[in-house]
Order: sequence, then C-alpha cells, then structure tokens
Amino acid sequence: MAQQERGARSRNLLLRVAAEVFDERGFDSASTTEILERSGLTRGALYHHFPSKEALAVALLTAHRDFLRVPDQPTKVQAVINLTHAYAHQLQTDPALRACVRLAVEQSSLRGPAAAPYQQASGTVRELLAKAKEQGELLPGIDPVEAAEMINGTFTGVQVMSRVQTGRKDLPQRVSTMWRFLLPGLVNPGMIAHLQTSPAPQQDNTPARGAPAAR
Amino acid sequence: MAQQERGARSRNLLLRVAAEVFDERGFDSASTTEILERSGLTRGALYHHFPSKEALAVALLTAHRDFLRVPDQPTKVQAVINLTHAYAHQLQTDPALRACVRLAVEQSSLRGPAAAPYQQASGTVRELLAKAKEQGELLPGIDPVEAAEMINGTFTGVQVMSRVQTGRKDLPQRVSTMWRFLLPGLVNPGMIAHLQTSPAPQQDNTPARGAPAAR
Repeated sequence: MAQQERGARSRNLLLRVAAEVFDERGFDSASTTEILERSGLTRGALYHHFPSKEALAVALLTAHRDFLRVPDQPTKVQAVINLTHAYAHQLQTDPALRACVRLAVEQSSLRGPAAAPYQQASGTVRELLAKAKEQGELLPGIDPVEAAEMINGTFTGVQVMSRVQTGRKDLPQRVSTMWRFLLPGLVNPGMIAHLQTSPAPQQDNTPARGAPAAR
Repeated sequence: MAQQERGARSRNLLLRVAAEVFDERGFDSASTTEILERSGLTRGALYHHFPSKEALAVALLTAHRDFLRVPDQPTKVQAVINLTHAYAHQLQTDPALRACVRLAVEQSSLRGPAAAPYQQASGTVRELLAKAKEQGELLPGIDPVEAAEMINGTFTGVQVMSRVQTGRKDLPQRVSTMWRFLLPGLVNPGMIAHLQTSPAPQQDNTPARGAPAAR
C-alpha cells in the first residue's frame, strides 16, 4: 500500500517536472536526463512509469481534457466564453497546460499525439454550440462544427500573439476582444448585450496554483 | 563585376536553403552544417555573407515584408481580405514564408527578431484599416489597431490548425470561413454582400513557384 502510494507520487512528480521541461524547451529539445535531475528520481523509476519521453508527452496530452471542464451555464455560448477565459487563466498559471499548448503548436518529432488538444477542444466547443443552436442562441445557418474550429483557431492564434508580445500577460484582454469581434457573426443580435465577454471576477480571485495571487 | 554577381548568387542560394532548413527543423534544430551541405558552398562563403545562423534568420525575417504586398483596392477591407488569401497561397507554396512563420510561432533561442512578422503584418493591416475607417467601411467604434491585432491573431491560429490537421491543404477554405465570421463584427452590414471572402480566381491559377500547378 505504502509502495503503491510512493509509486503514484513518483508518477505525478515526473509528470509535473516533464510539463515544466516541455514548456521551457519544447518536445525535441527536452531530455529525460533533465527531467530526472529536476525530479531527483532514478532512470529506473522513470522507465517503470513511462517507457519513453513520448509516453510522458502522451500522458500530459491525454490529461489536457481536464483543462476543458467548466461549470454548466443555461446560456451555452456563455459557457464557451467562460471556457476560453478559464483556459487563458490556466495558461498563465499552470505549466501542465502550457506544456500541452507548446506540444500542440510547435512542429516536432511528436507528430500525431500533438493534435490531441485541438481535437479535445473542438469536441467540447462543438457540443456546447450544438446545444446553443438547439436553444436558438446562434444566427441562422451557423454550423457548430465550423464555428468550433473557428473559435479554437482564433484562440490558438490570440494566445500565440499574447505569448510573443507580452509573455501572455495581456491574454485575458485579448480573449475579451476576440469575443467582441466574433459574437456578431455567431449569435442572435438580441443576445450580445446579455453575454459577459470579460473574465468573470471570481476567476481573477482564484489564487493560482504555484503562482502569486496578484498577477 | 562577375565576382559581385557570384556573391549575390551565393547569398540568395544560402537564404533559399536556410529557409528550407528552418521550415523543416525550426531555429534551434537547424544547423549551418546542413545548410552548407545542401547549398554546396564553403563555410567561408557562408561567413562572408552571414556571420551566424541568427543572421540568416534575421535576413529572412526582414524580407518577410515582401509577402505583405498586394495590389491596391478601392475597398480597403477587400485589400485586407486579398492580403490574407495571397499570404495563405504563399504559405502553401514558398518555403521562405513557411520558414518565417515557423520562426515567429515557435519558441526558440531566437527571441526578439522572431516577432518581426507580427509587427510587419500588424502595421500593414492597421494602415489599410485606418483608410477603411476613413472611407466609412468599418462599424462605428472599431479601433484599427485592435482590429489589426485580432485579424492577425486569428490568421495565425487558423494557419496553425490547418497545418496540424491537413498540412495547410485546407487553408484557403479556412481563411474564407474566418472572414465570414469576422466581417459582421468589423464592417458596415451593407458592405458584407459586396466583399469577396473566397480567394480571387487568378490567385488559384498562378502556377506556384516550385510546386505543381494543381494542388
């Protein structure tokens, strides 16, 4: 039992450190040697849990779907907006999400598995938009599949530009701007005034894991 | 004179080969050794033109502004739309542009100079949108600076997703979709029907440099 617990703790430690190293170096430049040095574990412990660097990346990319959970909302477009703000906040504060996004955005020898974050995000947004369409929130003729791809594509680029220009400091404002531009082509005109496009205040008050409360 | 000509030819060859290698490997994994092997030039010739790998990247990133030239249009929003389609077409066909975009999107030891494509593109789009505003093409309250950042951010993400999912084959369609979603939040409603959001036919007929005519 104690051994099982130690095993789980080592596995979590390896994933946390691997996320930091992938976030800082990208997949191809990351080395298992650095992951071992930073975690203080042995190569035997690493291989027990993850047979390769790729297995570490795949485990992180599979867990990426945990970043796509948001509380349900009666208005489904509001749920999508809240999702993008929560995701932006986690990008600022959680190396595990930053690692996934870097693995997904950059070309590397990882290839196939790197597309997982796009597929997961498109699936989540598509489902919410399908419900939004049923509820009459969307403009006539909007295809939830196409709209989900568009929202995810826009978010991807907005976060890249925010990272390049401000180290993601202005990401919440850029996400709000993104929604101001996207909503007129997406939802019924009468709805726009009722949607909250800036981050909900409680999101800003949540103390970030491992980061100072004031950003 | 013949020597000057040979010099210019070597310089162009080095830039062309460097673009291919940056496009395929990214900045950190690209090596001057590979650039020399593929170009058949000596290390002396390389250092004569470019003192470092970074100097090659900076030269390519400076020349990136050549990809932002499009014929003038009476309707300035149409000029911006045409610019994104021409850029998309060149991304499919020209390794020099693909290299710039990879250098700009990926985190590497290059840092500062990698932001040049965003700055150049934002400048060009901002200028066109400022004229569009003067001509009454934009919705009231649209800020050309913010709108230019939004358009460039959206394009960046759309091309990343197109690359990941189809090797940029579906990029023209994705750019058309992007405009269908963006225009209602950007231009006066009466203009939308007059704007051409799909690629102009002549763009599709231009035989691509070094690529088969049929894509």
